[in-house]
Amino acid sequence: MHFDHVGVATDDAAVLADLYGDLFDAPVAHEEVFDGLRVTFLQVGESYFELLEPVSDEGTIANYLDREGPGIHHVALATDDVGAALDTARDHGVELIDEEPREGAWGHDVAFLHPRDTGGVLVEFVQH
Amino acid sequence: MHFDHVGVATDDAAVLADLYGDLFDAPVAHEEVFDGLRVTFLQVGESYFELLEPVSDEGTIANYLDREGPGIHHVALATDDVGAALDTARDHGVELIDEEPREGAWGHDVAFLHPRDTGGVLVEFVQH
Repeated sequence: MHFDHVGVATDDAAVLADLYGDLFDAPVAHEEVFDGLRVTFLQVGESYFELLEPVSDEGTIANYLDREGPGIHHVALATDDVGAALDTARDHGVELIDEEPREGAWGHDVAFLHPRDTGGVLVEFVQH
Repeated sequence: MHFDHVGVATDDAAVLADLYGDLFDAPVAHEEVFDGLRVTFLQVGESYFELLEPVSDEGTIANYLDREGPGIHHVALATDDVGAALDTARDHGVELIDEEPREGAWGHDVAFLHPRDTGGVLVEFVQH
């Protein structure tokens, strides 16, 4: 596995993309509106920042911003088999948010683990 | 630049290292006690999880755990020139926690940016 991306909840992805582009040599690699979010991937080496900006007042990220404010939301690990990665997590008693891989942004297969069982870290598996 | 590590505040690095090793194919690459913390680096591709466990009841991470609970604490970007990266941040009006590079864990040169000016994300520059 390797780090695919660090997900960042923000209420202004455009401003943050400009800043991160300048500070971290992180150009925009992909942008789309997906599942109520403006999603912007900024390339950093073999990985990405994934900026998540709600386009409505409802949804997971909007709630997160209300509760926690902007900041790091999750970390995603790239794997060539999300299903097998989920099986390993299940075998270790980790609660799964997604029991099966589902379609995420950029057409990738994704699944999340519950942070309660992973040291408070919201982990996503992602397969390109 | 590329992602050097994702820093995770924890009150039990040994348990988390075992779990992450199994779930994320992330073997222990380095371990030391530095600046009041048990610091454990787990290799993930070209990057690392950095597990940060306080060895006393005081300090930044102990306070963070009291306030926020365990979870992602910061993200670190590898650069070949921390000083130049700080200059760029300074030029963009970003408040610096470290005005100059200082010695961090594993003998690396490090410096932190204030999350207030980087979208709520605590960013570290690190130079091996």
